[in-house]
Amino acid sequence: MGIENTNQRTNENTGENISERTAMKHTPINFADKFEKINAPWQPRVVAEMNDYQFKLVRLEGDFVWHQHADTDETFIVLEGELRIDFRDHCVHLKAGEMVVVPRGVEHKPFAAGAVKALLIEPRGVVNTGAEGGERTAHNDVWV
Amino acid sequence: MGIENTNQRTNENTGENISERTAMKHTPINFADKFEKINAPWQPRVVAEMNDYQFKLVRLEGDFVWHQHADTDETFIVLEGELRIDFRDHCVHLKAGEMVVVPRGVEHKPFAAGAVKALLIEPRGVVNTGAEGGERTAHNDVWV
Repeated sequence: MGIENTNQRTNENTGENISERTAMKHTPINFADKFEKINAPWQPRVVAEMNDYQFKLVRLEGDFVWHQHADTDETFIVLEGELRIDFRDHCVHLKAGEMVVVPRGVEHKPFAAGAVKALLIEPRGVVNTGAEGGERTAHNDVWV
Repeated sequence: MGIENTNQRTNENTGENISERTAMKHTPINFADKFEKINAPWQPRVVAEMNDYQFKLVRLEGDFVWHQHADTDETFIVLEGELRIDFRDHCVHLKAGEMVVVPRGVEHKPFAAGAVKALLIEPRGVVNTGAEGGERTAHNDVWV
């Protein structure tokens, strides 16, 4: 009887070999290169993981839906363009080189008058529309 | 008898009012503005928190020490300049708009031939020199 080699686990969703992903951690991730593979807005794509957190690149353009994430803060870092995030009682404006942390449980709605490229950081498993759901909900844990 | 208002906690290290920090989460953080308050290299300064993770801006210039973080991955995002991170068997080169996640327990040594501005993301409490210690160890949890 032998012991199975658990270094060769496979991601249940993607079939990807986990040990390959671990190896990716040493590889620089170039945001511009990744964005060439992301066409549609409001479709976050995972580019890296740190512990149980994910880094997601996303194009934002137009209006989104009000939502909240009950269990986690969420970080927006703007890489290109200008992003407005509406809260129920005020809004913040973010341009390239600026970030904001939206606290857990706080309703918010991103809005981009033009094209925006942003980096999101949040725990693995967070869905873009939070508990709100609906047609704007993107597939989760999609890597690019 | 009344119940103490726990919304008015104070950070034991800084005396800062926690509720003020929570309010800061709605405020955009401008990296360039923060870097104006950071003069010395190798002195990470916290600019934001997301759950139990911290975002730290740091200037890097010259060589650092070999170290590792046994309990956590560590993320480097380069904002300006060119950074090399040496591993024991290879190195990676990062320029502005690139990131890398250094896996937990992996020895690494950042090196910057010129001036570099970077954003670090790691759990609260991580020390810059890991378990290595020594004179290059910076004060931790210093906000700017």
